[in-house]
Amino acid sequence: MGPALQALILRAEQALDHRLPPADQSPADLHRAMRYAVLGGGKRLRPLLVYATAQALGEDGPQLDAAACAVELIHAYSLVHDDLPAMDDDALRRGRPTCHVVFGEAMAILAGDALQALAFEILAEDTTRQTDPATGMAMLRTLGRACGAEGMAGGQALDLAAVGQPLTLAQLEHMHACKTGALIRASVRLGALAAGGDADVLQALDDYANAVGLAFQVRDDILDVEGESIVIGKTAGKDAAAGKPTFPSIIGLDASRARLAELTNAALAAISPLGERGALLRELAHYAAQRAS
Amino acid sequence: MGPALQALILRAEQALDHRLPPADQSPADLHRAMRYAVLGGGKRLRPLLVYATAQALGEDGPQLDAAACAVELIHAYSLVHDDLPAMDDDALRRGRPTCHVVFGEAMAILAGDALQALAFEILAEDTTRQTDPATGMAMLRTLGRACGAEGMAGGQALDLAAVGQPLTLAQLEHMHACKTGALIRASVRLGALAAGGDADVLQALDDYANAVGLAFQVRDDILDVEGESIVIGKTAGKDAAAGKPTFPSIIGLDASRARLAELTNAALAAISPLGERGALLRELAHYAAQRAS
Repeated sequence: MGPALQALILRAEQALDHRLPPADQSPADLHRAMRYAVLGGGKRLRPLLVYATAQALGEDGPQLDAAACAVELIHAYSLVHDDLPAMDDDALRRGRPTCHVVFGEAMAILAGDALQALAFEILAEDTTRQTDPATGMAMLRTLGRACGAEGMAGGQALDLAAVGQPLTLAQLEHMHACKTGALIRASVRLGALAAGGDADVLQALDDYANAVGLAFQVRDDILDVEGESIVIGKTAGKDAAAGKPTFPSIIGLDASRARLAELTNAALAAISPLGERGALLRELAHYAAQRAS
Repeated sequence: MGPALQALILRAEQALDHRLPPADQSPADLHRAMRYAVLGGGKRLRPLLVYATAQALGEDGPQLDAAACAVELIHAYSLVHDDLPAMDDDALRRGRPTCHVVFGEAMAILAGDALQALAFEILAEDTTRQTDPATGMAMLRTLGRACGAEGMAGGQALDLAAVGQPLTLAQLEHMHACKTGALIRASVRLGALAAGGDADVLQALDDYANAVGLAFQVRDDILDVEGESIVIGKTAGKDAAAGKPTFPSIIGLDASRARLAELTNAALAAISPLGERGALLRELAHYAAQRAS
């Protein structure tokens, strides 16, 4: 990533550090587990999408930090719960032991729960008073829909049900559109709402987010085949070994690469009306498709 | 409970049934687990507090249903996660097998997650358009604070840490003020915010909610000693057997009964300025202290 996105990663991580509860304050175990799950690694794709979208529409105020934190907290909580023994049972995440390995299962469940609550709380607080309440409510609706049974949690349920099942490409893409796509779309939409984007631009950005979200997942599946654990920061070959349907397992590696290129082109086409203002969003689309980890 | 509260229980259950995702729609397993966790039993104390508080302040519009649903969904999610094997490992709840016993651990974790998201989503939707956005934001802040690390999730972390530990009465009461008290206070406050209560009345109602929340928990501990599983709908003697500190274990049964009477009096005193309008809130204070299950 270029220097502008690197600076935004720093901005997101400072905002997260500032808003997470202090590690030396009771209940300290819970606070430490929450901070462990959120800080110290991660691509920060979702906060970057919030900032890049809002900046493309001319908004860069401090109120963006709340939305950027909210989507990353939701993402972090979902990883903590997905990694649990009863779910994907993964011991490695971002190159470190997973939250339940360090803090125990009970604390990992609670930390995930508390991170989800914190995401909504931060978005509702709006300490900057820069967002009018009607926009704030629209942002909270957007986040709520993205997280629930019709969004991320529903996608994870579809994912669990898919283990060992022969899915069609359409079913696989629907599962990912819920499991990871819903929160990626919400990230873009939160940025657009904060910037006061009109209906036309919201639709174009939604098309962009759909394509980027799916491209990100195709790349994930390709990395699961091609990558090394040391680079991707989690156990390579894990999905295939677990009998999870992936793009390579359904359509093969070459067709997966072709689908990735197609999705990247669709993402870029969707935001072409933004012209030069869409530079960071274009960079993020390329990043999602080409990342090595 | 009298007919007015019984009617409000029905109102809450219809609102919940209406807002929970349909059991015959994909992802059906998740939807069924969510419905199982919420419908079919429960005292509905938190929705009743929303309605009774708002009615005491002269508001009874359909917008109350969103807040009533939200607090009950949060409560239901917390029970699902608390009952998990990694947490309290309980097989019986409301006289039925717990959610993870019926649907498996992974689905129970997900159902809890989705219920929490749905609570915030419903509060943010306000389909009735009867709540102005600034009030809506205040309600979402109230719910967010009650659920997180400084509220319910934090209280559960304190509860986990307390197993086998000698707590003082003050520490035990602080744990309960977080674990169950925060959401009970939020229920009262959501009702008051929806009704446009002023600062004085909010403070009086907060005092009431503090006392009722703690009284409810003292009664729970007494029932754990005196009650039978068949009546209380969960495993009797469970807390004592698990080495959890309780009011009877710390101050004895007689002093627990005296504390319960004291808290009930404090609750009634706090709302005495409401006069006749506080009748349902008074009934709920008596119910919390005297219930047999």
